[in-house]
Amino acid sequence: MREILYGRNAVLESLRAGRRKPYKVMLAEGVRQTDIVGQIVFLAEQAGVSVNRTERRNLDRLGKVHHQGVALETSAYPYSALDDILALAQSHDEAPLLLLLDLLQDPQNAGSLLRTAEAVGAHGVVVQRRRAVGITPAVVHASAGAVEYLLTAQVTNLVNAIGRLKAHDVWVVGLEAVRDAQLYHEADLTGPLALVVGSEGQGLRQLVRERCDFLVGLPMQGKVTSLNAAVAGSIVLYEAWRQRQADE
Amino acid sequence: MREILYGRNAVLESLRAGRRKPYKVMLAEGVRQTDIVGQIVFLAEQAGVSVNRTERRNLDRLGKVHHQGVALETSAYPYSALDDILALAQSHDEAPLLLLLDLLQDPQNAGSLLRTAEAVGAHGVVVQRRRAVGITPAVVHASAGAVEYLLTAQVTNLVNAIGRLKAHDVWVVGLEAVRDAQLYHEADLTGPLALVVGSEGQGLRQLVRERCDFLVGLPMQGKVTSLNAAVAGSIVLYEAWRQRQADE
Repeated sequence: MREILYGRNAVLESLRAGRRKPYKVMLAEGVRQTDIVGQIVFLAEQAGVSVNRTERRNLDRLGKVHHQGVALETSAYPYSALDDILALAQSHDEAPLLLLLDLLQDPQNAGSLLRTAEAVGAHGVVVQRRRAVGITPAVVHASAGAVEYLLTAQVTNLVNAIGRLKAHDVWVVGLEAVRDAQLYHEADLTGPLALVVGSEGQGLRQLVRERCDFLVGLPMQGKVTSLNAAVAGSIVLYEAWRQRQADE
Repeated sequence: MREILYGRNAVLESLRAGRRKPYKVMLAEGVRQTDIVGQIVFLAEQAGVSVNRTERRNLDRLGKVHHQGVALETSAYPYSALDDILALAQSHDEAPLLLLLDLLQDPQNAGSLLRTAEAVGAHGVVVQRRRAVGITPAVVHASAGAVEYLLTAQVTNLVNAIGRLKAHDVWVVGLEAVRDAQLYHEADLTGPLALVVGSEGQGLRQLVRERCDFLVGLPMQGKVTSLNAAVAGSIVLYEAWRQRQADE
């Protein structure tokens, strides 16, 4: 199966990461020759991939969001296995740090959150195959291409995946601002850890919440009592990373 | 000037905050009767505002994003003055905490970030009138209605506003991961503070950066070297709030 990635960062990072087979770069006629476009052309030529100039309206048809004049036809997203993620942590001699998405569906939010996961060096991400977002071109775009480097496992059942992580001594932490949640900056996030972020509006499914070892929440003092899911998840990921660095 | 807000949280919080004059609630026929919809109808009746049932396609015409079957015709967003924001901090006997948006244009990002600002009790937000996002219905929606409570000042020139804040002894901190930036969690964010967040991709304008008292950045260890602007700004706002609470 082929996909068409779009947007400058998405295309550049996909070529740079080199995990997919690229087939064709498309540049809109008259696209501004920025550094990034120059790098894209260079990497495409190095990989023996053709660079086609095309009318802008051909790119306009690809998707709703800004393609910025650049697209890449490529092989499908290379999903990993859960074991690959744990093996990566082990090979770096680090305590595993994973992000689990429980039915998060908005590509913009998923992409923003995965971008943060890549930035803090998370070893991987787990998403459920059904009723949750996959790593679509929209997610790649929203992540500014970061998911091209991240190991992402797509599983049939997130609850089973949690069970497997616990069998590997990973602590599973649900993000939810409920009464028995610990404050995120007071919880110990230094060990092997999987952070579970729920969907906008619904939060975690009960079955998922019950399997968590503990819950963390963000304090809030305003009138509106929830944060954007990507923002909340990112804040906890950064706190986990900060604690780990202080711990070293 | 009238506006049409859409989305359950946006409409509910606008009615609850009570800072705008509401004219008419529109509910799509067959809309699911959630708690929120019930509260909207209750608040509308209390305010003497008519609740009109309408065909869903009439709401579909309002905008591209999900209206969730609910819209509200209302007066324009009630902008505040910079002095109102400083007066609010003073009336609470708190060190001012402000968020300044430098040419941030994406409504989704702006809304997510303003939602965080409201959650941490920021006293207000400053945006430039031109070349930056205003508080449009899309921003209200993306903020889950939080901006209905926030004081937001729209200024002609952000650089001048920075000057006025400095004259009031507010420290102006730019968010930018450059070499001479302090790590956000090592910087002292407890005093009177205005955090400036730049646009996606471009960051801060040079003129703005030069007026900042200091810069803070987020450490990153991945291959992709930037975060979503709403995520990065939110992480620093939470750190500022955490430090303030620890300081009390």
